[in-house]
Amino acid sequence: MKQSALLTKTRKNTSQQEASINAQLLEKGGYISKLMAGVYSYLPLGLRVLTKIENIVREEMNSENGQELLMPALQPKDIWLKTERWDKVDVLFKLKGEGDRDLALGPTHEEVVTPLVGEYIQSYKDLPKHVYQIQTKFRNEPRAKSGLLRCREFRMKDLYSFHAQEDDLDQYYEKMTNAYLRIFNRCGLGEITYLTFASGGIFSKYSHEFQTITPFGEDIIFLCENCKIAINKEIIEEQNSCLKCGNKNLVQNKSIEVGNIFKLKTRFTDAFNLTFTDASGQQNPILMGCYGLGTSRLMGAIVEILHDEKGIIWPENIAPYKYHLISLAKEKDEIEKVETIYHQFQNSGLEVLFDDRIGVHAGEKFADSDLLGIPYRIVVSTKTLAQNSVEIKERKSAETKLIKIDELKNLN
Amino acid sequence: MKQSALLTKTRKNTSQQEASINAQLLEKGGYISKLMAGVYSYLPLGLRVLTKIENIVREEMNSENGQELLMPALQPKDIWLKTERWDKVDVLFKLKGEGDRDLALGPTHEEVVTPLVGEYIQSYKDLPKHVYQIQTKFRNEPRAKSGLLRCREFRMKDLYSFHAQEDDLDQYYEKMTNAYLRIFNRCGLGEITYLTFASGGIFSKYSHEFQTITPFGEDIIFLCENCKIAINKEIIEEQNSCLKCGNKNLVQNKSIEVGNIFKLKTRFTDAFNLTFTDASGQQNPILMGCYGLGTSRLMGAIVEILHDEKGIIWPENIAPYKYHLISLAKEKDEIEKVETIYHQFQNSGLEVLFDDRIGVHAGEKFADSDLLGIPYRIVVSTKTLAQNSVEIKERKSAETKLIKIDELKNLN
Repeated sequence: MKQSALLTKTRKNTSQQEASINAQLLEKGGYISKLMAGVYSYLPLGLRVLTKIENIVREEMNSENGQELLMPALQPKDIWLKTERWDKVDVLFKLKGEGDRDLALGPTHEEVVTPLVGEYIQSYKDLPKHVYQIQTKFRNEPRAKSGLLRCREFRMKDLYSFHAQEDDLDQYYEKMTNAYLRIFNRCGLGEITYLTFASGGIFSKYSHEFQTITPFGEDIIFLCENCKIAINKEIIEEQNSCLKCGNKNLVQNKSIEVGNIFKLKTRFTDAFNLTFTDASGQQNPILMGCYGLGTSRLMGAIVEILHDEKGIIWPENIAPYKYHLISLAKEKDEIEKVETIYHQFQNSGLEVLFDDRIGVHAGEKFADSDLLGIPYRIVVSTKTLAQNSVEIKERKSAETKLIKIDELKNLN
Repeated sequence: MKQSALLTKTRKNTSQQEASINAQLLEKGGYISKLMAGVYSYLPLGLRVLTKIENIVREEMNSENGQELLMPALQPKDIWLKTERWDKVDVLFKLKGEGDRDLALGPTHEEVVTPLVGEYIQSYKDLPKHVYQIQTKFRNEPRAKSGLLRCREFRMKDLYSFHAQEDDLDQYYEKMTNAYLRIFNRCGLGEITYLTFASGGIFSKYSHEFQTITPFGEDIIFLCENCKIAINKEIIEEQNSCLKCGNKNLVQNKSIEVGNIFKLKTRFTDAFNLTFTDASGQQNPILMGCYGLGTSRLMGAIVEILHDEKGIIWPENIAPYKYHLISLAKEKDEIEKVETIYHQFQNSGLEVLFDDRIGVHAGEKFADSDLLGIPYRIVVSTKTLAQNSVEIKERKSAETKLIKIDELKNLN
């Protein structure tokens, strides 16, 4: 992609006061644009990052036999009455549809997925089932001030699993736990993201959050460094030691929640009267689990954590482009040489953003590149061309080195 | 995918009365599930089809330099007041957000995209720009009774182009026209889809619809068979001849609208005061075009047209799977042989749905296969195995033929 043709430009300031680091950097970089508090557009660079995150999530859900579907945002009141949540979910957006019908905008999809999947489950032979979607969700949050971390409209993956037996639910819950850890690992947060015990509500002793440690976090967790697990603030009040090894030397850390998983058991299947026939012909309740992960929130969390004073530092797997090719060429023959290098990148199938802008100073191009945070910066100038070379620098490192143009074909 | 593990099963009847053919067949096949009138879930098979359609649309938009972004569904009232459409768009869903703020759910995105793109346009050097999204839209339709053809929540691609000069808008409009024709061609409707002149509103003489001819259509168009273009009912009242060649022998046909494109010119850029500086330093208004295509509506239209009394007949490019492998094996060694064939398909990277269900009669499997409408049916039975063969049949043909198992590797 040529930067001269890209919709967006970087800017020095955000249009409105943005308190959070993620919104500041993402707005300045032209990744997102704020329409109103808690509601953002994803611009071309931002949508590339979001799509990469969502594709990683999709791959990991598919690898645990998740079947992808897409449920509606518009939901009728009657299903929310059945679960007694119409008046209980504070953040529910409510509206009127044709014929004065009461509707909600889905903040989550238990009310839709439970009867939907129930239609296809008669006997134990139809279980287990695991379905998920990656979709836009709506929550009328009282305060939306943390950029992509707490939005009124946001992107989320939600998987729902349906089981005949508790041990089957337990095993799948374990598989999902590992799938989540793989996702955070692939998104560059692996080493600082902890499975965290949280309150389970009425139906289970614990649920689990995934918390990423950062001084910019708004949550607090207590970490067992032996077991690499944590417990959250609710749990620490009951139990002041690691739930796995009993270690009492827990380390307090600030953190951001990047996912949560619940054993719902019969909370929703009871409400919709979902049962299956077991091998002996008896009717039994179906057990459920739900597994949420805000993909746009994860994007915000990554920026909140992986940045420096100059800008974003994207992990390679989710960067909008892997290479940022920067032309400092001025003369016609030099410009042609850089164009040739760009086409070489494209022909090799490499993801490259090409700063081909003419009349923009080197300092400004470097500042833009640091703000955008693309993993590898490749500079072509009169000086490098004199040595048949380009200068390559990793965003996260200060070190530059020259490599011969001939050797660029070895990049991948 | 093994059919025994698939979330959905086919069913004999739709749960509620569905008047339209597309909803009947898609519901019976387990492609979609109705939550309420005009609001559907896309189930695993249905989402595969929708995603394939959307990827074709995406490729064609990218090929005309469209830059993909994603704008919000939640929109504040003030931008709709600026264009004087808050009270004029009948199908606008309205709701209240935090702080009693008036919001709308986006039925279209001119109010968002115009100021958004405007932020990045200062001079003629920043033009043209073309951005698009593929996104869920909301329209509070008074009547929603045609399955996927007229929904209250639906999927749509909308591209918006921004130009300095009228001839640049005209040229891009022509390119989009051709991109649309390529899309319908790739989706199997090429030969029966016509560029159709429609009323242009205040700012242009004509807009254009893309109309697909079918006896099941709810629109009427008048077709010039020389020029392969059509005019719609609004236009025929003013002009009873082909707008291209003057031919008066226009043929009346029923049709379904599958896309529409407009030259908006300054309708929205004036409202948001969007201008650019030309080469002589003068401020000029920016010209706009918009190009809509309902991707879920297109899915419905394809089913409405491409079916027979037994079920859907998917075009190969958008079928959920290319091959439907059907096992009629009963003995253990036969079952193993079919499993081997299935793995062979998978290892070759072929898209295959494998009807591995045990205890389901051949007749039922064939009926399901016809209903689902996968392009190629491949049956493995005791009889075919005795000849080291499988039986292959195209969904759209009655002819079956045996091919040797050895030769399956030549399929692609």
